[in-house]
Amino acid sequence: MKRVLVTGAGGFIGRGLAARLAVQRREGRIDALTLVDLHFSDDAAVEGVRKIRGDLGRGEVLHEALAERPDVVFHLAGITSRQAEEDFGLGLRVNVTDTVALFEGLRAQAQCPVVVYGSSIGVHGAPLPAAIDDGTPPAPALSYGAQKRMVEILLADYSRRGWLDGRSVRLPSVVARPAQPGGALSSFASDLIREIAEGRSYECPVDASATLWLLSLPACIACLLDVAAAEAHPLPAGRAWHLPALRARVGEIADALVRRFGPEVHTRLSFRPDASLQAQFGRWPPLATPVADRLGLQHDGDLDILVERALADGPSTRPQA
Amino acid sequence: MKRVLVTGAGGFIGRGLAARLAVQRREGRIDALTLVDLHFSDDAAVEGVRKIRGDLGRGEVLHEALAERPDVVFHLAGITSRQAEEDFGLGLRVNVTDTVALFEGLRAQAQCPVVVYGSSIGVHGAPLPAAIDDGTPPAPALSYGAQKRMVEILLADYSRRGWLDGRSVRLPSVVARPAQPGGALSSFASDLIREIAEGRSYECPVDASATLWLLSLPACIACLLDVAAAEAHPLPAGRAWHLPALRARVGEIADALVRRFGPEVHTRLSFRPDASLQAQFGRWPPLATPVADRLGLQHDGDLDILVERALADGPSTRPQA
Repeated sequence: MKRVLVTGAGGFIGRGLAARLAVQRREGRIDALTLVDLHFSDDAAVEGVRKIRGDLGRGEVLHEALAERPDVVFHLAGITSRQAEEDFGLGLRVNVTDTVALFEGLRAQAQCPVVVYGSSIGVHGAPLPAAIDDGTPPAPALSYGAQKRMVEILLADYSRRGWLDGRSVRLPSVVARPAQPGGALSSFASDLIREIAEGRSYECPVDASATLWLLSLPACIACLLDVAAAEAHPLPAGRAWHLPALRARVGEIADALVRRFGPEVHTRLSFRPDASLQAQFGRWPPLATPVADRLGLQHDGDLDILVERALADGPSTRPQA
Repeated sequence: MKRVLVTGAGGFIGRGLAARLAVQRREGRIDALTLVDLHFSDDAAVEGVRKIRGDLGRGEVLHEALAERPDVVFHLAGITSRQAEEDFGLGLRVNVTDTVALFEGLRAQAQCPVVVYGSSIGVHGAPLPAAIDDGTPPAPALSYGAQKRMVEILLADYSRRGWLDGRSVRLPSVVARPAQPGGALSSFASDLIREIAEGRSYECPVDASATLWLLSLPACIACLLDVAAAEAHPLPAGRAWHLPALRARVGEIADALVRRFGPEVHTRLSFRPDASLQAQFGRWPPLATPVADRLGLQHDGDLDILVERALADGPSTRPQA
């Protein structure tokens, strides 16, 4: 890992990953770090880190992003599930067309970089199968998942041809995202943890029996770094697999919040389930992650650790009203 | 079926389909027929048929192709398996990017046309599973199959959203294609039938035990027309399924050619198997086609009928040396 590019580096996961990589850069463990996004919450310059503010779909931004000829790319830029459903054309452009352009730009550099692609468990759609593992055929039920699956297939083909060393990892609900209008449809897991932790009331759009796949941001970042560092040799031909995740019911998350913040949590938590949201995002079946297990990737272990890690950065930033 | 657009209308299948549709146009059963391709072998004008010569990837050609606001589209334009493997960028552009533009153009017309998409059994790749049906998870092993699968997923998403009424049909080896430099990698089935029928010698690149899925051009066209006319209601959510096909060994095809053209066929047929070609294109397992069966689609029934139909148009056109 010498020259690293992170797309979507201003987003929730990208920001956390970029902070970890900036430390490695400072320590001289990587030689170059380029961050790209439309926006960064923090505009401060960091020594040795190139920050590019712009739309990867524009040729000159892509050109600038690739200028240091990255040998590791974390491609996290994308339009969320909610937005991709509301603005299909935008989702298609950013999630597919711009990604094709990025891959083609990397192919032209002819050095077969590692590409860690932020895919999603949304490649599986309602009605969900009774159990899921890395071999379960994806059947997306939202545009977001369809677009993610298309890119997984594309990245596997680039990998087969020896042009990119692709690793599509399907991210579960990564918590706790900051509140964000137009965020992921599945953001209620983050909302629940964050709103309760910060002393507010929360009306949950799925019921207590809703079952989720969860990973804290620090655990997710550790997985992404391990995935980038993994040997290509034993990876599956499809180059796509699930990150490990803690499977938990919303009621169990609430219990963990009660253990941490006290019984008055109950008075601030109410439920108003939305059936279609619950069908897609609240019925995750048992998950087996053989590829991740083989790579030594780990989820948070239990909900108390997950909640602690999810809140590790303190009160999350919220857009000002 | 009122206003029909055929892309790839100058190709092997497109040409046959267009001829059938031109008859329907003459009989007043369809109101408009637009044919698009880079080239047409026959430049003669046909009354009531718009022929557009050009690259669908160019905005003005696409605009012209959609000018009659088609309510049925047969999207057959594409780069073949061999070409898509040799010129990845071209395959990606034509098979994916230009198809996205076509679908977006149709979406903008807001009338949810039926879109019959010429997909391919190439969505399955070597090593092939022991049996295949419409539910077998695709695992492409060539860029062509990867690109076809990406479009299937995209078309299913447009269909879910009510913007296109998509029907991706996976075509087996359709015979007998004219000889064509740079044609499909699987074209040996056509080459075998055509070369022997036309009195020449043929060196087959797979051995006599190689097993293929076959459909004659007339049977294929009948299937495509039936697929376009089918009710959307009972179609699977993934909107992709296999056309019926006759499964036969190369040796059995040779036997049918002997029955038709006499025992001296043996003297003109030799074998020089290529292992990797045979692995991808000569080991098709038993095929079940429940969706096609439900729609009443039929393959040729037996090899004698298949050979007869495959040669129905007489000696096929060959490029002049």
